[in-house]
Amino acid sequence: MSKQLPLAAMDACCSPLVRAPLTQEQAVELSRLFKAMADPVRLRLLSLIASHAGGEVCVCDLTDAFDLTGPTISHHLKVLRESGLITGERRGTWVYYRVHPEVLARLSAVLTPEGSEVETASSAK
Amino acid sequence: MSKQLPLAAMDACCSPLVRAPLTQEQAVELSRLFKAMADPVRLRLLSLIASHAGGEVCVCDLTDAFDLTGPTISHHLKVLRESGLITGERRGTWVYYRVHPEVLARLSAVLTPEGSEVETASSAK
Repeated sequence: MSKQLPLAAMDACCSPLVRAPLTQEQAVELSRLFKAMADPVRLRLLSLIASHAGGEVCVCDLTDAFDLTGPTISHHLKVLRESGLITGERRGTWVYYRVHPEVLARLSAVLTPEGSEVETASSAK
Repeated sequence: MSKQLPLAAMDACCSPLVRAPLTQEQAVELSRLFKAMADPVRLRLLSLIASHAGGEVCVCDLTDAFDLTGPTISHHLKVLRESGLITGERRGTWVYYRVHPEVLARLSAVLTPEGSEVETASSAK
Protein backbone atom coordinates (compact mmCIF):
# COMPACT_ATOMS: atom_id res chain seq x y z
CA MET A 1 0.00 0.00 0.00
CA SER A 2 2.99 2.33 -0.32
CA LYS A 3 2.24 5.46 -2.26
CA GLN A 4 4.36 5.69 -5.35
CA LEU A 5 4.79 8.92 -7.20
CA PRO A 6 4.55 8.70 -10.97
CA LEU A 7 7.98 8.92 -12.59
CA ALA A 8 7.13 12.16 -14.30
CA ALA A 9 6.56 13.82 -10.93
CA MET A 10 9.87 12.51 -9.57
CA ASP A 11 11.77 13.76 -12.58
CA ALA A 12 10.09 17.11 -12.56
CA CYS A 13 11.08 18.08 -9.03
CA CYS A 14 11.06 21.71 -9.95
CA SER A 15 8.49 23.55 -11.97
CA PRO A 16 9.97 26.33 -14.11
CA LEU A 17 9.74 30.04 -13.37
CA VAL A 18 7.13 31.59 -15.63
CA ARG A 19 7.73 35.19 -14.66
CA ALA A 20 10.35 37.16 -12.78
CA PRO A 21 9.85 37.04 -9.00
CA LEU A 22 10.34 40.15 -6.87
CA THR A 23 13.90 41.34 -6.36
CA GLN A 24 15.11 42.04 -2.84
CA GLU A 25 14.81 45.81 -3.40
CA GLN A 26 11.26 45.49 -4.70
CA ALA A 27 10.35 43.25 -1.76
CA VAL A 28 11.69 45.75 0.77
CA GLU A 29 9.70 48.55 -0.88
CA LEU A 30 6.47 46.55 -1.18
CA SER A 31 6.71 45.16 2.35
CA ARG A 32 6.42 48.76 3.60
CA LEU A 33 3.10 49.03 1.78
CA PHE A 34 1.82 45.75 3.16
CA LYS A 35 2.87 46.88 6.64
CA ALA A 36 0.76 50.02 6.21
CA MET A 37 -2.17 47.75 5.33
CA ALA A 38 -1.60 45.29 8.17
CA ASP A 39 -4.05 47.08 10.44
CA PRO A 40 -7.83 46.56 10.49
CA VAL A 41 -8.69 50.27 10.67
CA ARG A 42 -6.35 51.23 7.83
CA LEU A 43 -7.61 48.33 5.76
CA ARG A 44 -11.20 49.48 6.23
CA LEU A 45 -10.24 53.05 5.38
CA LEU A 46 -8.52 51.88 2.21
CA SER A 47 -11.47 49.66 1.33
CA LEU A 48 -13.93 52.52 1.92
CA ILE A 49 -11.94 54.85 -0.32
CA ALA A 50 -11.60 52.24 -3.07
CA SER A 51 -15.32 51.39 -2.81
CA HIS A 52 -16.51 54.90 -3.62
CA ALA A 53 -17.24 56.03 -7.14
CA GLY A 54 -14.04 57.20 -8.79
CA GLY A 55 -11.90 55.70 -6.01
CA GLU A 56 -12.22 58.97 -4.10
CA VAL A 57 -13.99 59.94 -0.91
CA CYS A 58 -14.53 62.97 1.29
CA VAL A 59 -12.97 62.70 4.74
CA CYS A 60 -16.41 63.44 6.21
CA ASP A 61 -17.63 60.09 4.89
CA LEU A 62 -14.68 58.28 6.41
CA THR A 63 -15.02 59.62 9.93
CA ASP A 64 -18.76 58.86 9.97
CA ALA A 65 -18.10 55.20 9.22
CA PHE A 66 -15.98 54.55 12.32
CA ASP A 67 -16.56 54.57 16.03
CA LEU A 68 -13.21 56.29 16.48
CA THR A 69 -12.10 59.85 17.26
CA GLY A 70 -11.13 62.24 14.48
CA PRO A 71 -7.45 62.32 15.54
CA THR A 72 -7.27 58.50 15.45
CA ILE A 73 -8.73 58.42 11.93
CA SER A 74 -6.34 61.20 10.93
CA HIS A 75 -3.36 59.24 12.24
CA HIS A 76 -4.29 56.18 10.19
CA LEU A 77 -4.95 58.28 7.08
CA LYS A 78 -1.51 59.84 7.56
CA VAL A 79 0.16 56.40 7.66
CA LEU A 80 -1.66 55.42 4.46
CA ARG A 81 -0.73 58.73 2.82
CA GLU A 82 2.93 58.51 3.83
CA SER A 83 3.14 54.96 2.49
CA GLY A 84 1.96 56.22 -0.90
CA LEU A 85 -1.21 54.11 -0.93
CA ILE A 86 -3.50 57.15 -0.96
CA THR A 87 -3.32 60.88 -1.62
CA GLY A 88 -5.24 63.61 0.14
CA GLU A 89 -6.29 66.91 -1.42
CA ARG A 90 -8.08 69.79 0.24
CA ARG A 91 -10.94 71.22 -1.83
CA GLY A 92 -12.96 73.85 -0.04
CA THR A 93 -14.05 72.63 3.39
CA TRP A 94 -13.08 69.01 3.01
CA VAL A 95 -10.07 66.85 2.31
CA TYR A 96 -10.67 64.27 -0.39
CA TYR A 97 -8.79 60.98 -0.32
CA ARG A 98 -8.04 58.96 -3.38
CA VAL A 99 -6.37 55.59 -3.86
CA HIS A 100 -3.29 55.28 -6.07
CA PRO A 101 -4.43 52.74 -8.68
CA GLU A 102 -0.85 52.15 -9.91
CA VAL A 103 0.37 51.31 -6.42
CA LEU A 104 -2.59 49.03 -5.75
CA ALA A 105 -2.07 47.35 -9.14
CA ARG A 106 1.55 46.58 -8.21
CA LEU A 107 0.49 45.02 -4.92
CA SER A 108 -2.28 43.13 -6.63
CA ALA A 109 0.14 41.75 -9.22
CA VAL A 110 2.30 40.28 -6.45
CA LEU A 111 -0.76 38.42 -5.24
CA THR A 112 -1.70 36.98 -8.59
CA PRO A 113 -0.47 33.44 -9.27
CA GLU A 114 0.85 32.77 -12.77
CA GLY A 115 -1.84 31.96 -15.29
CA SER A 116 -4.12 34.70 -14.00
CA GLU A 117 -2.12 37.74 -14.96
CA VAL A 118 -3.46 41.20 -14.29
CA GLU A 119 -2.81 44.32 -16.31
CA THR A 120 0.47 45.97 -15.40
CA ALA A 121 0.56 49.42 -13.90
CA SER A 122 1.90 50.90 -17.15
CA SER A 123 -1.43 50.21 -18.85
CA ALA A 124 -3.10 52.64 -16.45
CA LYS A 125 -0.83 55.45 -17.62
CA MET B 1 -7.40 85.01 -7.76
CA SER B 2 -9.25 82.83 -5.29
CA LYS B 3 -9.82 79.32 -6.52
CA GLN B 4 -13.49 78.61 -6.90
CA LEU B 5 -14.83 75.12 -7.07
CA PRO B 6 -17.48 74.48 -9.71
CA LEU B 7 -20.93 74.22 -8.16
CA ALA B 8 -21.30 70.62 -9.17
CA ALA B 9 -18.25 69.67 -7.12
CA MET B 10 -19.53 71.59 -4.12
CA ASP B 11 -22.94 69.94 -4.27
CA ALA B 12 -21.52 66.49 -4.72
CA CYS B 13 -19.36 66.50 -1.59
CA CYS B 14 -19.65 62.78 -1.31
CA SER B 15 -19.34 60.27 -4.07
CA PRO B 16 -21.61 57.24 -3.62
CA LEU B 17 -20.49 53.80 -2.53
CA VAL B 18 -20.36 51.52 -5.55
CA ARG B 19 -19.65 48.32 -3.68
CA ALA B 20 -19.70 47.11 -0.10
CA PRO B 21 -16.54 48.03 1.80
CA LEU B 22 -14.91 45.54 4.19
CA THR B 23 -16.69 44.88 7.45
CA GLN B 24 -14.75 45.13 10.69
CA GLU B 25 -14.56 41.34 10.96
CA GLN B 26 -13.28 40.96 7.41
CA ALA B 27 -10.72 43.70 8.01
CA VAL B 28 -9.41 41.98 11.15
CA GLU B 29 -9.05 38.70 9.28
CA LEU B 30 -7.41 40.22 6.19
CA SER B 31 -5.05 42.38 8.23
CA ARG B 32 -3.54 39.16 9.60
CA LEU B 33 -2.73 38.12 6.03
CA PHE B 34 -1.20 41.48 5.16
CA LYS B 35 0.85 41.29 8.36
CA ALA B 36 2.24 37.94 7.22
CA MET B 37 3.22 39.61 3.95
CA ALA B 38 4.74 42.70 5.56
CA ASP B 39 8.24 41.22 5.54
CA PRO B 40 10.66 41.33 2.58
CA VAL B 41 11.74 37.69 2.88
CA ARG B 42 8.19 36.37 3.12
CA LEU B 43 7.12 38.58 0.25
CA ARG B 44 9.92 37.20 -1.93
CA LEU B 45 9.03 33.64 -0.92
CA LEU B 46 5.40 34.24 -1.83
CA SER B 47 6.40 35.88 -5.11
CA LEU B 48 8.74 32.98 -5.95
CA ILE B 49 6.02 30.43 -5.31
CA ALA B 50 3.42 32.37 -7.32
CA SER B 51 5.92 32.86 -10.16
CA HIS B 52 6.45 29.15 -10.77
CA ALA B 53 4.39 27.18 -13.23
CA GLY B 54 1.19 26.02 -11.56
CA GLY B 55 1.76 28.33 -8.58
CA GLU B 56 3.75 25.57 -6.90
CA VAL B 57 7.42 25.17 -6.06
CA CYS B 58 9.76 22.67 -4.45
CA VAL B 59 11.35 23.88 -1.20
CA CYS B 60 14.76 23.11 -2.74
CA ASP B 61 14.19 25.93 -5.24
CA LEU B 62 13.23 28.33 -2.47
CA THR B 63 16.27 27.81 -0.26
CA ASP B 64 18.62 28.19 -3.25
CA ALA B 65 17.23 31.61 -4.03
CA PHE B 66 18.15 33.16 -0.66
CA ASP B 67 21.34 33.92 1.18
CA LEU B 68 19.70 32.71 4.39
CA THR B 69 19.95 29.56 6.51
CA GLY B 70 17.47 26.70 6.08
CA PRO B 71 15.91 27.26 9.52
CA THR B 72 15.32 30.95 8.75
CA ILE B 73 13.61 30.08 5.47
CA SER B 74 11.59 27.41 7.29
CA HIS B 75 10.46 29.93 9.90
CA HIS B 76 9.18 32.32 7.25
CA LEU B 77 7.46 29.51 5.32
CA LYS B 78 5.77 28.48 8.57
CA VAL B 79 4.41 32.01 9.11
CA LEU B 80 3.06 32.04 5.55
CA ARG B 81 1.56 28.57 5.99
CA GLU B 82 -0.06 29.40 9.33
CA SER B 83 -1.58 32.56 7.86
CA GLY B 84 -3.25 30.45 5.17
CA LEU B 85 -1.46 32.15 2.27
CA ILE B 86 0.31 28.94 1.22
CA THR B 87 0.10 25.21 1.77
CA GLY B 88 2.96 22.75 2.03
CA GLU B 89 2.79 19.09 1.01
CA ARG B 90 5.53 16.49 1.31
CA ARG B 91 5.92 14.35 -1.79
CA GLY B 92 8.89 11.99 -1.66
CA THR B 93 12.05 13.82 -0.63
CA TRP B 94 10.75 17.35 -0.95
CA VAL B 95 8.06 19.60 0.43
CA TYR B 96 6.11 21.43 -2.27
CA TYR B 97 4.63 24.82 -1.53
CA ARG B 98 1.61 26.17 -3.28
CA VAL B 99 -0.19 29.50 -3.11
CA HIS B 100 -3.88 29.63 -2.20
CA PRO B 101 -5.39 31.39 -5.23
CA GLU B 102 -8.71 32.05 -3.42
CA VAL B 103 -6.95 33.77 -0.53
CA LEU B 104 -4.78 35.82 -2.87
CA ALA B 105 -7.83 36.73 -4.94
CA ARG B 106 -9.56 38.07 -1.82
CA LEU B 107 -6.56 40.22 -0.95
CA SER B 108 -6.25 41.36 -4.53
CA ALA B 109 -9.93 42.38 -4.59
CA VAL B 110 -9.39 44.65 -1.59
CA LEU B 111 -6.69 46.40 -3.59
CA THR B 112 -8.78 46.94 -6.66
CA PRO B 113 -10.47 50.33 -6.94
CA GLU B 114 -14.03 50.36 -8.26
CA GLY B 115 -14.30 50.30 -12.02
CA SER B 116 -11.52 47.74 -12.36
CA GLU B 117 -13.18 44.76 -10.77
CA VAL B 118 -11.40 41.42 -10.66
CA GLU B 119 -13.06 38.02 -10.82
CA THR B 120 -14.30 36.84 -7.47
CA ALA B 121 -12.80 33.80 -5.78
CA SER B 122 -15.92 31.77 -6.52
CA SER B 123 -15.08 31.78 -10.23
CA ALA B 124 -11.92 29.79 -9.46
CA LYS B 125 -13.97 26.99 -7.93
